[in-house]
Amino acid sequence: MGNAQKLLLDMLLIFAGAKLFGTLFDRLRQPAVVGEILAGVLLGPSVFGFIHPNEATQGLAEIGAIFLLFTIGFESKPGDLLRVGRTAFSVALLGLAIPFAFGFAYMQAVDHDLVNAMFLAAAMVATSVGITARVLKDAKVLSTRAARVILAAAVVDDILGMIVLAVVTSLSKGSVNLVELGIVAAEAIGFSLFMIFLGSRLVGRLTPTMRRLRASNSAFILSVTLCLGLSLASVYVGMAAIIGAFLAGLALADHREEWGLEQTIHPIYEFLGPFFFVVLGAEVNLRTFALPGMPAMLTVICILAVISKLLGCGLGAASLGFKDALRVGVGMIPRGEVGLIVAAAGLRLHAISDQVYTAVVLMSLVTTLIAPPFLRLVLPPQSRPPAAHQPPQ
Amino acid sequence: MGNAQKLLLDMLLIFAGAKLFGTLFDRLRQPAVVGEILAGVLLGPSVFGFIHPNEATQGLAEIGAIFLLFTIGFESKPGDLLRVGRTAFSVALLGLAIPFAFGFAYMQAVDHDLVNAMFLAAAMVATSVGITARVLKDAKVLSTRAARVILAAAVVDDILGMIVLAVVTSLSKGSVNLVELGIVAAEAIGFSLFMIFLGSRLVGRLTPTMRRLRASNSAFILSVTLCLGLSLASVYVGMAAIIGAFLAGLALADHREEWGLEQTIHPIYEFLGPFFFVVLGAEVNLRTFALPGMPAMLTVICILAVISKLLGCGLGAASLGFKDALRVGVGMIPRGEVGLIVAAAGLRLHAISDQVYTAVVLMSLVTTLIAPPFLRLVLPPQSRPPAAHQPPQ
Repeated sequence: MGNAQKLLLDMLLIFAGAKLFGTLFDRLRQPAVVGEILAGVLLGPSVFGFIHPNEATQGLAEIGAIFLLFTIGFESKPGDLLRVGRTAFSVALLGLAIPFAFGFAYMQAVDHDLVNAMFLAAAMVATSVGITARVLKDAKVLSTRAARVILAAAVVDDILGMIVLAVVTSLSKGSVNLVELGIVAAEAIGFSLFMIFLGSRLVGRLTPTMRRLRASNSAFILSVTLCLGLSLASVYVGMAAIIGAFLAGLALADHREEWGLEQTIHPIYEFLGPFFFVVLGAEVNLRTFALPGMPAMLTVICILAVISKLLGCGLGAASLGFKDALRVGVGMIPRGEVGLIVAAAGLRLHAISDQVYTAVVLMSLVTTLIAPPFLRLVLPPQSRPPAAHQPPQ
Repeated sequence: MGNAQKLLLDMLLIFAGAKLFGTLFDRLRQPAVVGEILAGVLLGPSVFGFIHPNEATQGLAEIGAIFLLFTIGFESKPGDLLRVGRTAFSVALLGLAIPFAFGFAYMQAVDHDLVNAMFLAAAMVATSVGITARVLKDAKVLSTRAARVILAAAVVDDILGMIVLAVVTSLSKGSVNLVELGIVAAEAIGFSLFMIFLGSRLVGRLTPTMRRLRASNSAFILSVTLCLGLSLASVYVGMAAIIGAFLAGLALADHREEWGLEQTIHPIYEFLGPFFFVVLGAEVNLRTFALPGMPAMLTVICILAVISKLLGCGLGAASLGFKDALRVGVGMIPRGEVGLIVAAAGLRLHAISDQVYTAVVLMSLVTTLIAPPFLRLVLPPQSRPPAAHQPPQ
């Protein structure tokens, strides 16, 4: 009883808080996602302490992120992503090299510790596409060229980021096992390419079987199973679960109308999505800002994190012209949970100090919070949704 | 990472397992819900041990049950339930008195311990409406007279069951505080009557405000908030969360088309519902069947549980004629989680023995498993859905 009551209270606060602040920010013409994260900061231990993320709410948050990226996936077109493949690849590669170089140089300058520097540099690297995807979705610009480059680059970025993490972890232990590293990389690349090139065709083959089965809701059952299965597979090959969910969505994109995905998957995302953003906010510990030396270090790291990504990804997308390159650069700024995973790995290996860990966590948060308003600012003006863009259903 | 991976694996197994067995049972013209519970028994620790219910999956199960009863609620009509109010009241009252008397008499005969007997008797009392509601929904007979009586009786039953639990708990501690008991009962009755009589009208008042707000999805946001809020309120006044969810659904029933509830809430239930039934199955410990004296005791208790409810509720519904009275009687058989709560309370108070506890748990399970096929058998024949009752969406 106690547990059930606690969970219900958490859910009510998280859902209602997220929607209240999201709607408020939307009416103020700010990204709703910032409102949802802010609701989490307010509800969490840092301010009012109404919610304390636990296994159940973190689980709901994880599922929320998975359904967000699944939705983004089937609203994209695999062909469109492949067409921007070359640009996306250079965006991801430069968006990795320049932040890594900046982070490494800064830490070497202040600290002279090689391992500490490598971990901070690695944590500067990986873009978290969840936040940007949400802003693009809310602004209804998922089909624009810049959005397609961002989404395709996010897949490449996740693979590269995983390789960097593996290399840095091995180095901090003393040696790099190139064969092992090669296998991990090949698995991730193979899995992604397989899903992008063959996923849609395989799903197409399923459709007649599905019709023959004629079980109620078979399209719904198959698509949710595919989403959960590929999220899990993606964790097994070393990538983030949300990348698997995105690839599952991509595989279904060409069949989304026939399978009625919009109608069946979107409500689940509407219900669970807020948990991802609110829990993200609730996990912020504002007190760490007060640690000695933190404000200065944090300011430098955040500036480096923003500028290096803007520069790297912007240069990578230079062929699209200034405006789209800027959109891509801004869209790739948020670090979110990927930086946190790197920092946590570093902390477990005793490879980074508490101070650097806290700085990385706060940098992830700051980049996550500042990217949406900037992104909204540089998106094409006609695409900004009015305060009320959907009639009550 | 480890936690996220575990949760994804659990979710994939639970969702896919439930849908596979549910579809299979549906094609065999058996209730899909029995297939889903069986999938849980097989996946759980008793057989293959692939899943072990934990905080996260139990949370999802709880939410699944809430969305099931919420859906059942808005597919009902408050007016229809009130029209059968008198019958529902006598069904609930006799459905409480006769199982209590049977349970008490049996335990007094074998054990002579008053407290033990009272707890077993109390655990025999409360119907768990989740299972029956699911069978009625799948068979598309929610609007029949028998279904309306069952749903209305479930609300009364939950209030009466809660009062019985409070009385038994007080008695086992030595005395009954009649004032406290009166307050608890008044709260539960007041809350239920308020929602049934005024809920729909209050929601009707919200509609213009909702239109004025014109926030995207405001109907969805308000209805989910209402569902979670009333589930929580219902726990606060001492009733099961699912009764609050059902009352929230009832309040929205008259506005369900305008609010588009079918389209937005049903997919959430389709996704989370299986967790309730699979986790229920996974929590079964088949090994307890082997305890000494258990088979005989269990057989007697199960027979008493089935016959007493059939008799009590059937008599209560006698005015509907034999066929409908039989449907009501069979529909009220499942005990599910309410019996478990009573048994757990008894165990915590050291008021019942381990053997009686295990017998109550197994009785809840057995009544849950046998009711659906019998219910399907006595429902009007034209209402049985064909194997494929819905085209793939």
